[in-house]
Amino acid sequence: MANSAASDTDVLISEVGPRDGLQSVKATMPTADKFRWIDALAAAGVREIEVASFVPARLLPQMADAAEVVAYAARIPGVTVMALVPNLRGAEAALRAGVHKLTMPVSASRAHSLANVRKTPEDMVDTVRAIAALRDDIAPGVKLEAGISTAFGCTLQGLVPEDEVIRLAVMCVEAGADESGLSDTVGHANPAQVRRLFRRLRGEIGSKAGAAHMHNTRGLGLANCLAAWDEGVRTFDSSLGGLGGCPYAPGASGNVVTEDLVFMFEAMGVRTGIDLEKIIAARQPLAAGLPGEPLYGMTPDAGLPLGFVQAR
Amino acid sequence: MANSAASDTDVLISEVGPRDGLQSVKATMPTADKFRWIDALAAAGVREIEVASFVPARLLPQMADAAEVVAYAARIPGVTVMALVPNLRGAEAALRAGVHKLTMPVSASRAHSLANVRKTPEDMVDTVRAIAALRDDIAPGVKLEAGISTAFGCTLQGLVPEDEVIRLAVMCVEAGADESGLSDTVGHANPAQVRRLFRRLRGEIGSKAGAAHMHNTRGLGLANCLAAWDEGVRTFDSSLGGLGGCPYAPGASGNVVTEDLVFMFEAMGVRTGIDLEKIIAARQPLAAGLPGEPLYGMTPDAGLPLGFVQAR
Repeated sequence: MANSAASDTDVLISEVGPRDGLQSVKATMPTADKFRWIDALAAAGVREIEVASFVPARLLPQMADAAEVVAYAARIPGVTVMALVPNLRGAEAALRAGVHKLTMPVSASRAHSLANVRKTPEDMVDTVRAIAALRDDIAPGVKLEAGISTAFGCTLQGLVPEDEVIRLAVMCVEAGADESGLSDTVGHANPAQVRRLFRRLRGEIGSKAGAAHMHNTRGLGLANCLAAWDEGVRTFDSSLGGLGGCPYAPGASGNVVTEDLVFMFEAMGVRTGIDLEKIIAARQPLAAGLPGEPLYGMTPDAGLPLGFVQAR
Repeated sequence: MANSAASDTDVLISEVGPRDGLQSVKATMPTADKFRWIDALAAAGVREIEVASFVPARLLPQMADAAEVVAYAARIPGVTVMALVPNLRGAEAALRAGVHKLTMPVSASRAHSLANVRKTPEDMVDTVRAIAALRDDIAPGVKLEAGISTAFGCTLQGLVPEDEVIRLAVMCVEAGADESGLSDTVGHANPAQVRRLFRRLRGEIGSKAGAAHMHNTRGLGLANCLAAWDEGVRTFDSSLGGLGGCPYAPGASGNVVTEDLVFMFEAMGVRTGIDLEKIIAARQPLAAGLPGEPLYGMTPDAGLPLGFVQAR
C-alpha cells in the first residue's frame, strides 16, 4: 500500500512468505506452524502479511487451510491480512474469510499470463473489475491491489514492453483496483529500469502506485529496492529467509530476503517498525514448520554489525 | 581510479580476486593457474587487475610469486596491473617488479590498523608519504592509491567516525597519493552512509576520490555500489566468484561478486567494457586453480535473462 505505512514508520514491509514462500515449496506447512510463524512475524513488528492464496486445494495443497489462516491472522491487532486471489471465486472465498486486503496478479507478459492462468492480460483486467464490484458489494472496506507481474521481464517471453506494463497498471486502477504495484516475478529487473518504471507509474496513477515486489535471482534484489525507494516507493514485498519464487515461471527463484531488506533500511535510518533481532528470530518457527527447507539471508548469518543500534 | 575508465566505458571494474581473493583462502594457487586466470580476466575485457600483495612469503605464502605474477600480467596489453603494498619495502619490490599502480591500505579504525599492521593510521600516512617519494624517485609514472579500509565500520571497534575517515583520506592525498578510495572492509556499509561519505570525499578531494570497495557480508554489496554510482563514483573493486574478504577482520566475508556487478551495470546500460559471457567463463580457470573452493555469484547460477543483449 503506497500510503498505508503507519505514521511511526517510513516504509511498509509487506511479508509475503506465508503465501509466496509456502506455495513455492513442495512440503505443506502444518496449519499450527503457520500460526506460530505469523505470530512471530507480528511480534517482530510486521504490519502487513500476505498469509494465503485462495486457489483450489487440488492445485496448491499448501494453501488448503487458507480460510482458517486468514481468520487466525485477522485476530492479531495491527496486522493487515492479505491474500492472493487469481479469480472471482477465490476473491469471494477470501472476502468471506475476513481478509483486509486482496492482491490479484495480472501478468504484463502475455506468454506468462496464458501459462499461469490461461487468460490474457486484458481478461485479467476484467477479473479485477468483477472482483472490485464484488468487494464493493460484500466487503467495501477491503482494499484491492493489482500486482503487475513479469513487469520487468519474463522467462517465457523475454522482454516485456514498458508501455504495456504501464498501460496495464493504469487499466487495473481504472477497473477498480485501489493500487497497482510492479513485480519482478523472475528477477530480470535492474535499478535503472526500476526507477524508470516506477517514475512512469507514479506519473500516471500517483498515490495509487503500489508495492515494489523484487526478486534476488541475479543478486540485484536490494539494489532494486533501493532504486524504488529513491523513486518514492514506500511499500516493499519480501519474504522471510527469501522463501519463494514463482512456480509457473521456469528459472525463477528467490524473493528479496526480509531480514536483509529490513537491515538495509534500518541501517539507512529508514524506519520499518520491525525489530531486527525479532525478525531474525522469526526464522525459527519457519524452519520448524518446514524441516530441511533451505533459508537464505546474509544478515542472519553475519549477525548485526558491532556498534549497530536500531533506532526506536 | 576515479577518472581512468577508458573512453569507451562508463565505469572501471577493478578486479581484486587474484590479490584480495587469493590471500584470503588457505590454499595457494599455483603460479601457472594464476596466469591462466589473469589471461581469462583480460580476455573478458577487465582493464585493471590487482594481481598480488607484496608481503613477506612467510606471512602470506599465497603471494610468494608476487613479482613473477606482476611481470607476467604487465605484458598483457591494455591491463593496468595493481599490487597491494603494506609498507615501503613491499612498495619497492612492487615497483621493481613493474606494477602500473600501487594500492596501500590505510585503516580508518585505529583498532583495525593496530591489529592489521601494528601501526596507527597516522603512521600509515607517513608510509604513504615515503612510498610516494620512492615512487617519484624510481618509477614516476606509477599511480599510488590509498584505500581507506574499515571506512564504514569495524568488527573490532564498531563505529568509525565519518570525520576520521574523510580526514584520513585527505591526509593521504596530501601525503602524495594520487587518489583515496573507501573500503567497506567488513561489510558494515549501508547506501545512505555510502552516499554521505563519497559526497563528502568528492567535496574534499574532487577527482582524487577513488574506488568504492564494497563487501556483500550482509547482502548490501550491489546496493552500496549503486549508491556510490549515484554519487559519481566510477571505479568499483570486485572479485570474481566473490572470493575474498579480510583475514585480519574477524567475521568479514565476501567481496562484491564481479559477475553480478557487471550484470547490474550492463543491464542498466552502464558500459563496463566487460563481456558477461566471458567473465562468467573466467570462473573456470579460477575453479581449476583452487579445487574445492566455494565460488559465489547469482548471475552465473541463474544465467543471463532471456532476451538480454549486452550493448557493444
